[in-house]
Amino acid sequence: MSFNVTILGSSGALPAYGRFPSAQLVEIQNRHFLVDCGEGTQMQLMRFQANLHRINHIFISHLHGDHYLGLMGLIFTMHLLRRTNDLHLYSHAGLDEIITAQLRHSRSAPNFKMIFHRLEKGAQEIIYEDDALTVETIPLLHKLHCSGFLFREKIKPRRVNKEKLPQGLLLKQIANLKKGYDVIDETGNILYKNEDLTYPPRRSRSYAYCSDTAYNELIIDQLKNIDLLYHEATFTVDEEAKAIETQHSTAAQAALFAKKAEVTKLLVGHFSARYKDLAPILEEAKKVFENCELAIEGGVFTVKD
Amino acid sequence: MSFNVTILGSSGALPAYGRFPSAQLVEIQNRHFLVDCGEGTQMQLMRFQANLHRINHIFISHLHGDHYLGLMGLIFTMHLLRRTNDLHLYSHAGLDEIITAQLRHSRSAPNFKMIFHRLEKGAQEIIYEDDALTVETIPLLHKLHCSGFLFREKIKPRRVNKEKLPQGLLLKQIANLKKGYDVIDETGNILYKNEDLTYPPRRSRSYAYCSDTAYNELIIDQLKNIDLLYHEATFTVDEEAKAIETQHSTAAQAALFAKKAEVTKLLVGHFSARYKDLAPILEEAKKVFENCELAIEGGVFTVKD
Repeated sequence: MSFNVTILGSSGALPAYGRFPSAQLVEIQNRHFLVDCGEGTQMQLMRFQANLHRINHIFISHLHGDHYLGLMGLIFTMHLLRRTNDLHLYSHAGLDEIITAQLRHSRSAPNFKMIFHRLEKGAQEIIYEDDALTVETIPLLHKLHCSGFLFREKIKPRRVNKEKLPQGLLLKQIANLKKGYDVIDETGNILYKNEDLTYPPRRSRSYAYCSDTAYNELIIDQLKNIDLLYHEATFTVDEEAKAIETQHSTAAQAALFAKKAEVTKLLVGHFSARYKDLAPILEEAKKVFENCELAIEGGVFTVKD
Repeated sequence: MSFNVTILGSSGALPAYGRFPSAQLVEIQNRHFLVDCGEGTQMQLMRFQANLHRINHIFISHLHGDHYLGLMGLIFTMHLLRRTNDLHLYSHAGLDEIITAQLRHSRSAPNFKMIFHRLEKGAQEIIYEDDALTVETIPLLHKLHCSGFLFREKIKPRRVNKEKLPQGLLLKQIANLKKGYDVIDETGNILYKNEDLTYPPRRSRSYAYCSDTAYNELIIDQLKNIDLLYHEATFTVDEEAKAIETQHSTAAQAALFAKKAEVTKLLVGHFSARYKDLAPILEEAKKVFENCELAIEGGVFTVKD
């Protein structure tokens, strides 16, 4: 089952060197989520051949321009492409006013319904749920109300061992096996023990998106042991004072966080325009946390089953 | 003296094939104007190595997203780059509300002053003037209030013939020569006739930007004999019904307009996403008006002295 994060933008507030502002496409079990939507995101989605029609939920971490300014253009494009599905937009207060003012002045009314979901400052709560996964907010430390997003697969069904499965079982009995129950007869007697006919479920995978934020140990527990962590690393350590002033992180801080949270893999992004060459950022992070990559445009990071 | 139009975006409402939405940099005698500012304009300005600090006046033709959605990002970037000069923004009603709402929600206050100039529906009036040129609005026919922009150099000074210039003339006398006056003595007697010491002024050049618009003969008089005309050509003639419905033009219509207005050169742009290959658009226009080029990204069109 699929679990892929595609990087659409890796840049901090100032786009530079062909890098675009923040946006990522998160695809889990055929559900497509857009996370942040900086200027040019629709072009990046086209460049990497994403299907815009499949995106039904867009999560905006905060209302600094480099995280949402591509949204209005994407909405106009979805309208022109004759979208009809509802579009769910998750953000802190203000996005609805920004979108509706622009629709009003362009005298446009999209063909589809937009549903605004307001994020709460400092909250750590589930904002999306379906039968396969949840998305919960991560409280970040930034100049503006800012939330990260944690994608977690739910516990998956046990896998039936087809070689051992007796003939003649009812569909309901097989469904129950997947849920972890034994096979019983009408009077409740156990016919087959669950563990004799099934394998354990595949593990539940997780991805967390943390941008923009100062180093914040308060969220280590929430992100403990996740598979893949994106953590902003706007600066290298020699600019730590600047990082503190602007409530951003250094590469070393991102890596220290990954280490303390014991995540499997770290991606760093949101690079300041002062870095043309990103090698120093990667190098700094890898010294603290080896399993780290740069989240640059076009990168696709897969969490395996 | 310089007179250059750099194309930053050639796309219609839907960006496609690497084409960006409408934006042009117009540079005349070292004054830098931005005309429209679709999504991604700041990236295009950087790509073509424009100096953002030199842009003090931005003209927005209308409030369809593909003509202004890059403005907010450009403003944030100008702020981050520590701009202090005033920025003049010209548009139909609504832009100030759109900009100020976004500044409020991002809790940002630019270092520089923004001055909003409201364009009047259907007007044909001078909205900018300095000692070298004027910019006037062109009333366009579109679904939303929409104005084109006509850049015209003022009549230039006569050029002094240095070989014939007598020694000992006062600076004021030379200045008067450039203005077309004869050189006189204190009592008003003519010492030298102007035409003996000067050449005629270089000619005054002109550029008109017309996007988006249906074919509109009412503005032929205003644009008669201009040097360079940009006229949208969203469709080819086989989509004329679509052009009429959406109040856009075909390539043939753009060319017919150029022919009737007797302009020197025509640029066509604002191409629909249905055209991957733009050759049919150029071919259609050239059949009617030979001196025509595609206004594609990175194209620089110079009007010679």
